[in-house]
Amino acid sequence: MPRIALGVAYDGSFWQGWQTQPSGHTVQDQLESALSRFLAQSVGTICAGRTDTGVHGLCQVVHIDTDVQRRGESWVRGLNALLPDSIAVQWAQAVPDTFHARFSAMSRTYLYLVRNSRVRSPLLHGRAGWVYHALDLNSMREAAQRLLGEHDFSCFRSSQCQAASPIRTLQSLQVDQYGDFFLFTFKANAFLHHMVRNLMGALLYVGQGKHSPSWMTDLLAQRDRRLAAPTFAPDGLYFGKVDYPLEFDLPAASAETALFSHLGFSPPRY
Amino acid sequence: MPRIALGVAYDGSFWQGWQTQPSGHTVQDQLESALSRFLAQSVGTICAGRTDTGVHGLCQVVHIDTDVQRRGESWVRGLNALLPDSIAVQWAQAVPDTFHARFSAMSRTYLYLVRNSRVRSPLLHGRAGWVYHALDLNSMREAAQRLLGEHDFSCFRSSQCQAASPIRTLQSLQVDQYGDFFLFTFKANAFLHHMVRNLMGALLYVGQGKHSPSWMTDLLAQRDRRLAAPTFAPDGLYFGKVDYPLEFDLPAASAETALFSHLGFSPPRY
Repeated sequence: MPRIALGVAYDGSFWQGWQTQPSGHTVQDQLESALSRFLAQSVGTICAGRTDTGVHGLCQVVHIDTDVQRRGESWVRGLNALLPDSIAVQWAQAVPDTFHARFSAMSRTYLYLVRNSRVRSPLLHGRAGWVYHALDLNSMREAAQRLLGEHDFSCFRSSQCQAASPIRTLQSLQVDQYGDFFLFTFKANAFLHHMVRNLMGALLYVGQGKHSPSWMTDLLAQRDRRLAAPTFAPDGLYFGKVDYPLEFDLPAASAETALFSHLGFSPPRY
Repeated sequence: MPRIALGVAYDGSFWQGWQTQPSGHTVQDQLESALSRFLAQSVGTICAGRTDTGVHGLCQVVHIDTDVQRRGESWVRGLNALLPDSIAVQWAQAVPDTFHARFSAMSRTYLYLVRNSRVRSPLLHGRAGWVYHALDLNSMREAAQRLLGEHDFSCFRSSQCQAASPIRTLQSLQVDQYGDFFLFTFKANAFLHHMVRNLMGALLYVGQGKHSPSWMTDLLAQRDRRLAAPTFAPDGLYFGKVDYPLEFDLPAASAETALFSHLGFSPPRY
């Protein structure tokens, strides 16, 4: 049966995460409901990475199998007319049946957007984390360097994590400042449950001067979740990009480009 | 009785406009409720400009009269702890009793943010207008030039407008492009009901090539609302700034700076 890949963006603050729930209040439930109406047949979806309650998608990748034939733009317009305002398909493309949204993925990129200000903003509530105390860019960059590469990330792993191994490879972790905003870009082969939010908690402790950057090296060695910082809010967390082998020829905007396109967020950079 | 001025920001997509309603679902109702709890006395508010349902505030200015004394930061932190996530006081300052939030205002600045894209974004829904067809920057700039100065704006006035005169002075109207986004900045001594949204409808018709820029001159001369374009959505409309005499020494960030501070929105500019 022909296979179709879809790129899906969503505002996670309205939904109980990606994965289907009896309540129906999840992105997967909403997407499958729209697909079933659009195709007049029940369709299951496989996604690149499940996101938790409150976490946003810039380009979640999903695949479905269906005999129904539609042109690329027809998929996008048809599904978006049936989806709620807080979810929208960004592109659709036929893929060979060797493509699998989850298992073909080589790496995932998450973004975390923080607003650093004395007063909270009501306009990015739910879409950016808020830190009241001044953050220091350089110390967070130093801390980030200590996290790169293959590590046992047990200290940044939720107690509910079901992964077989706590070993992950953090390929890059970039920290940039744009005026009052800090943007953190995490790229890894895969992530443990709550790993980005737990890393954010620790990075922000360093940024506020509560610990030195070398604390990261200590935490990795100690492998004890109780010693690290609290899990930071999901508000500013965006599932930004999935990398697949080039042979599948899928749209490949960078995570930062996708964030700019959706929020208007962009340089000046410091 | 001492007078206090407050700068208030809000996400208007959650509220039925500024002005108090029996439902209580307005920004004024929420602010007065927070003030009454904070001061342990009932307090009425006067604002610089009432905004409609769905319209956002970057820096609405409000004054109150009260005998209760608090330090500046205490006003901000105390009220924000009592306000919903979608409303937040940005600053508070003592002012002389010659200051009046509405009558002392010399001019108001509104911003309109449009996302121009083939596919809608779920992440700025309610906070940016969406235009599917490609917009031409230069023709909208030419159209804007024709609207400047003192005019009878009857063709851009809601049928429910209660102003005594349709004459207003549009002091500036700037159109800028930032990637997929267009930002319109309107500054006038005062605005008629729905004036900015009606101007936006016409400017976007010109931007899509449905009319030439000279159409604006025709509309102003005809003074007939039925000949202009439909009222555009409130989604991307921000009450951006109020200008007061310098003697009051109130915070005076530009409307664009305020938008950047709240949304992270900024150059590259084209």
